Amino acid sequence: MKVNGTHFRSLWWDEGQDALQIIDQRWLPHDFRTQRLDTLEDYAAAISEMRVRGAPLIGATAAYGMALQMRLDASDAAMDTAWEYLHATRPTAINLRWALDRCRTALRGLKPSERPAAALQLAHEIADEDVEINRRIGVHGLELIRRTAAAKPEGEPVRILTHCNAGWIATVDWGTATSPMYQAHDAGLNIHVWVDETRPRNQGALTAWELGSHGLVDLVITGTDRTTRRGDVCNKIGTYLKALAAQDNGVPFYVALPSPTIDWTVADGIADIPIEERNAHEVTHIQGKSESGAIDSLQVSPDGTHGGNPAFDVTPDRLVAGLITERGICPATEEGLAEMFPDLAGARGAA
Amino acid sequence: MKVNGTHFRSLWWDEGQDALQIIDQRWLPHDFRTQRLDTLEDYAAAISEMRVRGAPLIGATAAYGMALQMRLDASDAAMDTAWEYLHATRPTAINLRWALDRCRTALRGLKPSERPAAALQLAHEIADEDVEINRRIGVHGLELIRRTAAAKPEGEPVRILTHCNAGWIATVDWGTATSPMYQAHDAGLNIHVWVDETRPRNQGALTAWELGSHGLVDLVITGTDRTTRRGDVCNKIGTYLKALAAQDNGVPFYVALPSPTIDWTVADGIADIPIEERNAHEVTHIQGKSESGAIDSLQVSPDGTHGGNPAFDVTPDRLVAGLITERGICPATEEGLAEMFPDLAGARGAA
Repeated sequence: MKVNGTHFRSLWWDEGQDALQIIDQRWLPHDFRTQRLDTLEDYAAAISEMRVRGAPLIGATAAYGMALQMRLDASDAAMDTAWEYLHATRPTAINLRWALDRCRTALRGLKPSERPAAALQLAHEIADEDVEINRRIGVHGLELIRRTAAAKPEGEPVRILTHCNAGWIATVDWGTATSPMYQAHDAGLNIHVWVDETRPRNQGALTAWELGSHGLVDLVITGTDRTTRRGDVCNKIGTYLKALAAQDNGVPFYVALPSPTIDWTVADGIADIPIEERNAHEVTHIQGKSESGAIDSLQVSPDGTHGGNPAFDVTPDRLVAGLITERGICPATEEGLAEMFPDLAGARGAA
Repeated sequence: MKVNGTHFRSLWWDEGQDALQIIDQRWLPHDFRTQRLDTLEDYAAAISEMRVRGAPLIGATAAYGMALQMRLDASDAAMDTAWEYLHATRPTAINLRWALDRCRTALRGLKPSERPAAALQLAHEIADEDVEINRRIGVHGLELIRRTAAAKPEGEPVRILTHCNAGWIATVDWGTATSPMYQAHDAGLNIHVWVDETRPRNQGALTAWELGSHGLVDLVITGTDRTTRRGDVCNKIGTYLKALAAQDNGVPFYVALPSPTIDWTVADGIADIPIEERNAHEVTHIQGKSESGAIDSLQVSPDGTHGGNPAFDVTPDRLVAGLITERGICPATEEGLAEMFPDLAGARGAA
């Protein structure tokens, strides 16, 4: 994506500095700041403090973290330490574990002397794959938008609601839910995107009123942090409510996801996906830009309020019209996912 | 309710100053400030700027506004001017119109010389009635909480979710949704109240996660700004989503309301209740307390964001388990309301 005319991925390897650069997303949308990650602690903090966020981007960041560790100490023990340390940063998004497992499995087969270069190469591959997967999600989602547009009167935009940020900065590039929107825009389709409000980071400023029997939404597309093999969808808290509102109003609710977001070991998402409980400070306080332009934080709840801050909820498969993946759109069912990913679905035997 | 040990109503007539005093709610929860209303412009601003808010409290405030006008000019023309001016402040809550109509109807039958004293007396009556109505709502709601408690294992609290603020400060005293909770607390019942997060004023810091198949909620009780004669419920935006989540999880969703909140002239709330669109600044910016203790405002959305800020949504009757009124609990149906209020339901012939 372009920021002020310059193309940026959400992270990139800086050859000159020989280190990973990230966009520190805590300052968005008010300020665009980048940060170089130098230590394993830097990587863990970047993920746990949500300087980088979004399931795919967390996975790619962790792969680079493993590559850093291999430069410092390429032993099996160091590899396991990095796996544990990075995995402990956030519990819900499955891409984190997927990326760490993929790195460890590949690197174990190599001699320690070969690991540093191979680990960096693997991290590059994971990042590039994420870009290509998301581009393909957009290709398939674009067809969905085209079909919706074809069913509407000439000249009327397709109104798409999304929730939270499943955009470019939640991935390495393109985004998941936003990829079909960007591609529809590039294809000259007339679309309107409703961006609803999600605390604590307030990505947008609308609520689900637009769905409420007022015909303002044709389609909902969200992202996901973990999808079970039967199609239950874990995503930013509030997603479940949008899915209920979509169902109650006959609006199709789709979820866009790269296949590494699927957890083949879990069927029942409500029972078996761990939900991250984040610091209550994120909901009792809020960050924004003051009149002077400075970024500041204010307490919004009464003194002494006990806040709860579960970061995610789970939308059951029955509310999901379809899953938009890099291979196409499939039903949110065990059969639908297994038919779309026969090569991956078989791998769950390990669970 | 007591604030720092002193009993306050949300508004009161100050005999010494011969004027109405309100709590300026824009500073809550961070600061407790009162304000004297001296002019009709003061009254209109207090309502439109949400210094006073909540359907019942708006109604009582408007009645005092009419009383002020009668002191300044007790002519029919002045009465109509005050009606129009105060009614235009906020479009959704029906209690505003109800109070203004009640005042005008009563005062028209009097000579102008009798009107100032009568109007003030009527405003006092409306305020006192609101207190009594809400006390009685609590009596009936308390029975509901008792029944819920009786069906639970010994020692476990009844967990009640509410949305937005239908509390003491939304009424003259007691609150609507909160009245059963206060009375249950006073009766020694073990209750836990979940207060979810509602923008733009952030009354609380939780979302509907607690409903999401996690069994954390036994009962939902909200307030309402206007209820149609068939039981559609207009309330703070987001209420509809809570009602959907309650239904999807088998949790009963009740609404507490004083009878002046019922609009007997309207059946279909989604089609026929005007929804107030408030200034987008309320969602693009947020107010809170800085580290220094000052109350400040921050911009939370990107520069140039077009915000939408519909203040209310409508929950259809089918999602409402029952209406808790000052006369008892009735089904959210045309028949249920007509049986509970045969004297009022007949009055809709005028529509």
